[in-house]
Amino acid sequence: MPKTLLTDRTRLRRLPDRGRHDWETIHRILDEALVCHVGFEVDGQPYVIPTLYGRAGERLYIHGSAASRMVKGLERGIPVCVTVTLLDGLVLARSAFHHSVNYRSVLVLGRAEPVTDAKEKWESLRIISEHVVPGRWAEVREPNERELAATSVLRIALLEASAKVRLGPPKDDEEDLSWPVWAGVLPLCTTPGDPVPDPSGGAMAEVPGYVKGYKRPP
Amino acid sequence: MPKTLLTDRTRLRRLPDRGRHDWETIHRILDEALVCHVGFEVDGQPYVIPTLYGRAGERLYIHGSAASRMVKGLERGIPVCVTVTLLDGLVLARSAFHHSVNYRSVLVLGRAEPVTDAKEKWESLRIISEHVVPGRWAEVREPNERELAATSVLRIALLEASAKVRLGPPKDDEEDLSWPVWAGVLPLCTTPGDPVPDPSGGAMAEVPGYVKGYKRPP
Repeated sequence: MPKTLLTDRTRLRRLPDRGRHDWETIHRILDEALVCHVGFEVDGQPYVIPTLYGRAGERLYIHGSAASRMVKGLERGIPVCVTVTLLDGLVLARSAFHHSVNYRSVLVLGRAEPVTDAKEKWESLRIISEHVVPGRWAEVREPNERELAATSVLRIALLEASAKVRLGPPKDDEEDLSWPVWAGVLPLCTTPGDPVPDPSGGAMAEVPGYVKGYKRPP
Repeated sequence: MPKTLLTDRTRLRRLPDRGRHDWETIHRILDEALVCHVGFEVDGQPYVIPTLYGRAGERLYIHGSAASRMVKGLERGIPVCVTVTLLDGLVLARSAFHHSVNYRSVLVLGRAEPVTDAKEKWESLRIISEHVVPGRWAEVREPNERELAATSVLRIALLEASAKVRLGPPKDDEEDLSWPVWAGVLPLCTTPGDPVPDPSGGAMAEVPGYVKGYKRPP
């Protein structure tokens, strides 16, 4: 494990008090979020693609169809940025200028490597599944050879990363504190609704506990 | 307004039934989401930065500190990708392979232009504010000259864009339908919690209706 994730490219130049470079903060954000946004360039054009992921120690795993543009691009070892964002609330200040959002985000810079070892590939798919719905993997029909061949997994080492965190109330200028408007934070969170059973025949009627009690962080 | 947003770069190569290229779908997703992820390259390294935005007709606006890396990079007119993702649910199939998520996403390709006209800049800040918290702008202390100078706004024309939408139940293979596990969709949505008043003195006690009744889409 590298001693620090801080590099010239991940050091925050502005609002450095929002920067976090410790493993614990970075891991916690990565473990709570569901979707990451993967950035890479093809023919001079950047693309940003949302996708699921999982983490094992200092490795991120993403997967996709072996035929996808993202997978084909990243398998060539081009530079990649993986960003994860949790939106925690809207920050309503007295001044338009000091409006903000409370959020926690992680930015990972690196290169993706294709996972070719069969055992690591299997394990990485389990990790992605357990990241999204812990408890699910043990109950489902496991991937077969054809499905494994159609799926590519990419590994991104967590070597260069940073987190940004904004929390707490608005920070208005002193002279605006008496401005006649409500000020504060409207918290936001991702909440599950009622599970919707598949109308196709054959599914078990009982909703599993890991679905009924689903929450983030897992 | 261009007749189509479909180009070789935004046409879906895989799962083309998930692709949408009509304005209505694209606008609706852009209007519902709060945060976009902006992708651009600096010195051969892609960066993906989460930020707020607003839409007016076929223009997206994003803003940031005039000193930020993102703003400085994009002001030079480099190619950009803006991606917006709404996560609507977890799709739990019988087979690991057919697990998925229900989502709606938009990908915009283009270049950002700095908004230099004072009137358009003011209006774009209002549009971003109203996108995030409709009703707020009219009540807050408006930006002053110093704040306007410290804020840069970038405009991205909606000329090349596509949406991807996955909805509905899992799509298992016929032979898996009797696998003994619950299958279906766990809906997810972003919900507001109880407003938290700013502990700093002077704020009005009454929570405005646009905060109490906050919901997406606005």
